[in-house]
Amino acid sequence: MDDYKYLNNINSPDDLKKIKYEDLIAVSKELRQYIIDVVSSSPGHFASSLGVVELTVALHYVFNTPYDKIVWDVGHQAYGHKILTGRRDAFCTNRQLGGICGFPSIFESEYDAFGVGHSSTSISAALGMAVSSCLKGEEDRHIVAVIGDGAMTGGLAFEGMNNAGVQNSNLLIILNDNNMSIDPNVGAFNQYLLDITTSKTYNKVKDEVWNTLGKIKKFGPNTRAFIQKVEGSIKSLIMKQSNMFEAMNLRYFGPVNGHDVNQLVKILEDLKDIKGPKLLHVLTKKGKGFEAAEKDQTTWHAPGKFDKKTGKRITVKSDKPQPPKFQDVFGHTLVELAEKNKKIIGITPAMPSGSSMKIMMEAMPDRAFDVGIAEQHAVTFSAGLAVDGMLPFCNIYSTFMQRAYDQVIHDVALQKLNVVFCLDRGGLVGDDGATHHGAFDLAYMRIVPNMIVSAPMDEPELRNMMFTAQLKNQGPFSIRYPRGSGVTSEWKTEMKEIEIGTGRIIREGSDIAILSIGAIGNLVTELKDNFEKESISVAHYDMRFVKPLDEKLLHQIFKKFDKIITLEDGVIQGGFGSAVLEFKNEHNYASKVKLLGIPDEFIEHGTQRELYRICGYDTESIFKTVKKITKNE
Amino acid sequence: MDDYKYLNNINSPDDLKKIKYEDLIAVSKELRQYIIDVVSSSPGHFASSLGVVELTVALHYVFNTPYDKIVWDVGHQAYGHKILTGRRDAFCTNRQLGGICGFPSIFESEYDAFGVGHSSTSISAALGMAVSSCLKGEEDRHIVAVIGDGAMTGGLAFEGMNNAGVQNSNLLIILNDNNMSIDPNVGAFNQYLLDITTSKTYNKVKDEVWNTLGKIKKFGPNTRAFIQKVEGSIKSLIMKQSNMFEAMNLRYFGPVNGHDVNQLVKILEDLKDIKGPKLLHVLTKKGKGFEAAEKDQTTWHAPGKFDKKTGKRITVKSDKPQPPKFQDVFGHTLVELAEKNKKIIGITPAMPSGSSMKIMMEAMPDRAFDVGIAEQHAVTFSAGLAVDGMLPFCNIYSTFMQRAYDQVIHDVALQKLNVVFCLDRGGLVGDDGATHHGAFDLAYMRIVPNMIVSAPMDEPELRNMMFTAQLKNQGPFSIRYPRGSGVTSEWKTEMKEIEIGTGRIIREGSDIAILSIGAIGNLVTELKDNFEKESISVAHYDMRFVKPLDEKLLHQIFKKFDKIITLEDGVIQGGFGSAVLEFKNEHNYASKVKLLGIPDEFIEHGTQRELYRICGYDTESIFKTVKKITKNE
Repeated sequence: MDDYKYLNNINSPDDLKKIKYEDLIAVSKELRQYIIDVVSSSPGHFASSLGVVELTVALHYVFNTPYDKIVWDVGHQAYGHKILTGRRDAFCTNRQLGGICGFPSIFESEYDAFGVGHSSTSISAALGMAVSSCLKGEEDRHIVAVIGDGAMTGGLAFEGMNNAGVQNSNLLIILNDNNMSIDPNVGAFNQYLLDITTSKTYNKVKDEVWNTLGKIKKFGPNTRAFIQKVEGSIKSLIMKQSNMFEAMNLRYFGPVNGHDVNQLVKILEDLKDIKGPKLLHVLTKKGKGFEAAEKDQTTWHAPGKFDKKTGKRITVKSDKPQPPKFQDVFGHTLVELAEKNKKIIGITPAMPSGSSMKIMMEAMPDRAFDVGIAEQHAVTFSAGLAVDGMLPFCNIYSTFMQRAYDQVIHDVALQKLNVVFCLDRGGLVGDDGATHHGAFDLAYMRIVPNMIVSAPMDEPELRNMMFTAQLKNQGPFSIRYPRGSGVTSEWKTEMKEIEIGTGRIIREGSDIAILSIGAIGNLVTELKDNFEKESISVAHYDMRFVKPLDEKLLHQIFKKFDKIITLEDGVIQGGFGSAVLEFKNEHNYASKVKLLGIPDEFIEHGTQRELYRICGYDTESIFKTVKKITKNE
Repeated sequence: MDDYKYLNNINSPDDLKKIKYEDLIAVSKELRQYIIDVVSSSPGHFASSLGVVELTVALHYVFNTPYDKIVWDVGHQAYGHKILTGRRDAFCTNRQLGGICGFPSIFESEYDAFGVGHSSTSISAALGMAVSSCLKGEEDRHIVAVIGDGAMTGGLAFEGMNNAGVQNSNLLIILNDNNMSIDPNVGAFNQYLLDITTSKTYNKVKDEVWNTLGKIKKFGPNTRAFIQKVEGSIKSLIMKQSNMFEAMNLRYFGPVNGHDVNQLVKILEDLKDIKGPKLLHVLTKKGKGFEAAEKDQTTWHAPGKFDKKTGKRITVKSDKPQPPKFQDVFGHTLVELAEKNKKIIGITPAMPSGSSMKIMMEAMPDRAFDVGIAEQHAVTFSAGLAVDGMLPFCNIYSTFMQRAYDQVIHDVALQKLNVVFCLDRGGLVGDDGATHHGAFDLAYMRIVPNMIVSAPMDEPELRNMMFTAQLKNQGPFSIRYPRGSGVTSEWKTEMKEIEIGTGRIIREGSDIAILSIGAIGNLVTELKDNFEKESISVAHYDMRFVKPLDEKLLHQIFKKFDKIITLEDGVIQGGFGSAVLEFKNEHNYASKVKLLGIPDEFIEHGTQRELYRICGYDTESIFKTVKKITKNE
């Protein structure tokens, strides 16, 4: 830490405030370098935090946190904030089990004003705090929401602005405009921001008009009447209606250079004196200060380990062919299917890379859509396509599908439309932690009438399920699969239809039956030798569908086994196991059923295997449970 | 039908198209009168449809439906559309069991392009159809979304516009601006619409600037250079950035008078020739043409039966004091609590009347907020208030809470914030039908960690539950209650704390136990005499909490009874009964459990009692089930 002359002495924003205004450039430089140093060896989100280094320093220099509140939207970009607020040394534990969280968390620090992870929440949350401050008479308190241009396209942000514009509260929205989400940002709003910041910027035009009018004034009394009229009209237009944010009754300032820390400090100081809701438009570069990241912002959103000198990412190479990521199996298979079935359309809300939808976007740009951070729209847009005869594959991470739940029920399922929901990142996702686990989807999807709820166990099964989903008009069809890689290096198998609502037997047995759903079933396969060593005859069924359940198979299982384990990478309450219990109850079976899955609590970050262990369904736990039940150990 | 010279002969839009342009005024007059005639005796939504009579006639006169598509947002306003598209005679069956649906439905008519009920879906759905048309090469097809200014504040609408602005599809958005939701519309966007339509309208300002500039030009070459500069700047500003919709890359037209049917026809004809996404701003008056409705638009949103001559609503009077509506118990109780507990804040997304939040809004205007049609924001705003120490009571209809599911999980429950969710309209709601039933909340709420899930049985219990919810810092607390009235005319009882996670016994018994949750339990009470007549000793437990379950009580029940019925006004799959089965399984009880509730399908419209019967849990069905189980009948 010898290189960090300033940073070494910053243990809280109070320490930062003691530093001279001129030295903030040096502080920013150190903070940027520290992020590079640590993230290169302790992987996490990268480019977003580099982009807001100066903004972070300026905010904590100017505002009196934690009395004043800073709400970071999404939170990818909050590493600098964490480092300046007492977590410099803990930063190397970022995203690791027991370490600090990759996102702001109210349980971790009083400086984290609001827990985030999902996008577009900051304005609403900050408005709540601002209104609360007013009610408590704390009118000297400042509430700041820092939100990216990508997050601004989420409907929640718009709802928040619409309400903020009529509340006379001390809210400052900082629009961190870097023209990126994880992938390049899309949509009309994004183009609008570009319009008001590039070539003919809003400010330039404004200045130009004012200057010109100033000159016209010199022409004397003859023109005065006209000029005043023009001026009045233009003023009202420019000041009130020419800017979308002003139209929403937010005072608009900017755009300003987000990498000039001294200028930012001055502006933020000025804004402190301006009452009411306001928006500062700050232009930043994602990945700023690290050449490779500036050049390829999507890859460097979360690059994994890298060489901080050469800017080369460190990837583990293997001689053997490796199983692919589930997302890539999805991406390639979708293109294969779409080549034959002209009705297929691909839809992703701002996750072309993360979902691998970009494979179809590149292969068939007319038929694959990135609709921006807008899960609700992604689903209802899919419904509109489906009602007109198209067959949309709408790919949304399990955790983000929560945001489109009403659209799934009301716009798709109620109308029994043929929309295929591909839920990536189903189950525990690992180091992204509590906000990102795909814990609830099996439970919340299975209660929706008309919905087919499936979870394939491996890559060929995912392909078969996708193939099956587009064969007939069978209404909404959800397919969930986990984060990470599968188990089959030879995954590009010929696709076969799966009869809907049928499970399959993976392994015969007689002592106990394990009924698994989805890829977590592979842990049971891993235990084959252990079971044999202990002479436990374990039958393993891959149920494939939570709904409709394979009742024929379940009757066989319940008749044969008095000991049954259900295994799912999802919440126990209301989930797959719960559906099996409903079957058991309806048919009056007496077999004992043990439900394995995520318990009724929010699970923090760690590796996926660590978290399975904590939840009691890693291989060791499954093995113990089987032994306990079969041998009463 | 003698008065309906034109309407009598309109069985489809083709018939309408045969009518002379000049006669459309008369057609509109008849259509308005027909809506008044029928709705006065067959109650339904009223003022919204009156407001769009001319727009409806013009749309079907100009567009080639059903090839062209009209998507009505929400659908309150689609009565005229239904009448003109073959459902004139069926209209008297509106919202009745087996009759036509109160909202557009794709299952009812090919003219209903998209099923609606919830707000703000039309732009996204219409965009899907427009993109589908492009892909199919049907470029002559027009897709029209008709959306109110209230629905525009829903984030989904913004997400749709953001995407529409970059798709080069033939989409026409008609903004039906009547300055109302069910209650008066709120928010910055609403003020903006007012700005561009009143005193200094957008158009006036535009004209003024152009005229003035035209005059300046006369001053000769000296000023020319400046003028050109000004003109260029202003042009780019006005044409591109001065209008919020233009900023979203939608061509903006209007505002126009929505009650001049002939002008509307001309404008719509013109717009047919303009390619690309566009928006027509139409000004209408909710309740137009019926004096009482124009004056009190909120009451006349859905007025019940009324005298079509005098404009007086017909209400049934009773000599005896009647039980209050649950919503009013909520409204009055909230004020009582808020008077003592200064932390309490009231929040409603655009339902001040429907939820009775208006009682607090009137009593404590600083502490009760209508945030517009914005359920997501309502919840995250509540989270922001709660994280700063306030105690928000966020009242959202069960069916609309689906739209804020992610915010409930991610912004409130994950942070264990003290937000009280009051879910009005829980269970089957009756004549609003499939889109509006509060069927899923018990199931989707109980899987959320940290969430307390309760459903009081009657008015005093609702009061006690609200009292309990604000006593301690216990994290998120959901209280659901049904549409309609309770059972207790003397409801204003002294409030008592309920121990969280405890049920209560309503009636002792020995043959069978019925475990009910919520107000549906009152049906069991109604059956008291029937059970006695049949000499069946039925124990009745009001469980009060789905989560945490009263395990102590459940142990007693499962030890005592081998026959158990669970009863809930919600989906069976994953619901309260399912939670009881999880308990039973975990503790290895053998009692037979029969689950009563909503089956795994979407339930249509009818009265609440009719729908209970269809779902098998009206009094008669419960009685039959009890007899069948106890007597093996």
